[in-house]
Amino acid sequence: MNQDLKGTIRSIKDFPKPGIMFRDITTLLKDPKALEAAAKTLYVAAKNKGITKVAGIESRGFILGGLISNMLGVGFVPIRKPGKLPAETISETYSLEYGTDSIQIHKDALDSGDKVLLHDDLLATGGTAKAACNLIEKLGAEVSQVSFIIELSFLNGREKLKGYDIISLVDYDSE
Amino acid sequence: MNQDLKGTIRSIKDFPKPGIMFRDITTLLKDPKALEAAAKTLYVAAKNKGITKVAGIESRGFILGGLISNMLGVGFVPIRKPGKLPAETISETYSLEYGTDSIQIHKDALDSGDKVLLHDDLLATGGTAKAACNLIEKLGAEVSQVSFIIELSFLNGREKLKGYDIISLVDYDSE
Repeated sequence: MNQDLKGTIRSIKDFPKPGIMFRDITTLLKDPKALEAAAKTLYVAAKNKGITKVAGIESRGFILGGLISNMLGVGFVPIRKPGKLPAETISETYSLEYGTDSIQIHKDALDSGDKVLLHDDLLATGGTAKAACNLIEKLGAEVSQVSFIIELSFLNGREKLKGYDIISLVDYDSE
Repeated sequence: MNQDLKGTIRSIKDFPKPGIMFRDITTLLKDPKALEAAAKTLYVAAKNKGITKVAGIESRGFILGGLISNMLGVGFVPIRKPGKLPAETISETYSLEYGTDSIQIHKDALDSGDKVLLHDDLLATGGTAKAACNLIEKLGAEVSQVSFIIELSFLNGREKLKGYDIISLVDYDSE
């Protein structure tokens, strides 16, 4: 947990809908010291794990995902919403509060034996991250770490990701 | 122009629709040497321009945008599709082949006096990039450079961006 970093995150009431307190990382991203600190802390947490690829979840997970992959000296793999990736993909569907959503990865994005750092900006209920872990494992690769900027621990996302090595930089334990 | 980099880009016929040859950067991104070379070349082109912020266009522009902003030691600002940014925004609408589309930026993302590097993965007709330049200038900031991984020069995107300093790494002069 990083209190300085927390101070750079803006909280916005009733976004995207009434009753939700949205944690806005754009104020962290535009602060060069906070951006560097966030990326570097996640890089340090990952650097001795033998990671061979970083996968980032569209679209906020692309920002630090790309940065951390370069720091680690490994390639970056995007996990995207349906219909965005042009080559052959596999998909995972997961539950939302109302209905379902899907994410995709290119079939040739990972090799069996790849050790993957999965990155997204936010751990909420963990549904998207769990679906992303499933995609990585379906391709025969290993999820070596899952990292987030923000964790909303009152939503118990770690439960859904049990067994994985999980890192987050800033925690909110209540709404 | 970088022939080695061009060799890491995959071409996919008829995506997203028949008759389009899609240039796929995911094969560049997953190659750590190509990712580093692309980011570094764009960083070097930008580093003596006094740039104070990097703005990246959702969502592929987030990947190298975040990376270059960190290399330059400046903050990163996302330009996003409507309804994604939680605080007060301004919008620009631009024409597509059929219909229109919009992009948004947070009102407080830039200060007057900011010198901005705008980054996206692809320069096609230039409509999105021109709209993004308008957003940056509406906030009183200056567009110091516009950088792309790929330029489809047969679509004449530079015409629409006349007067700006434009950099691209890989050119396709025909479909």
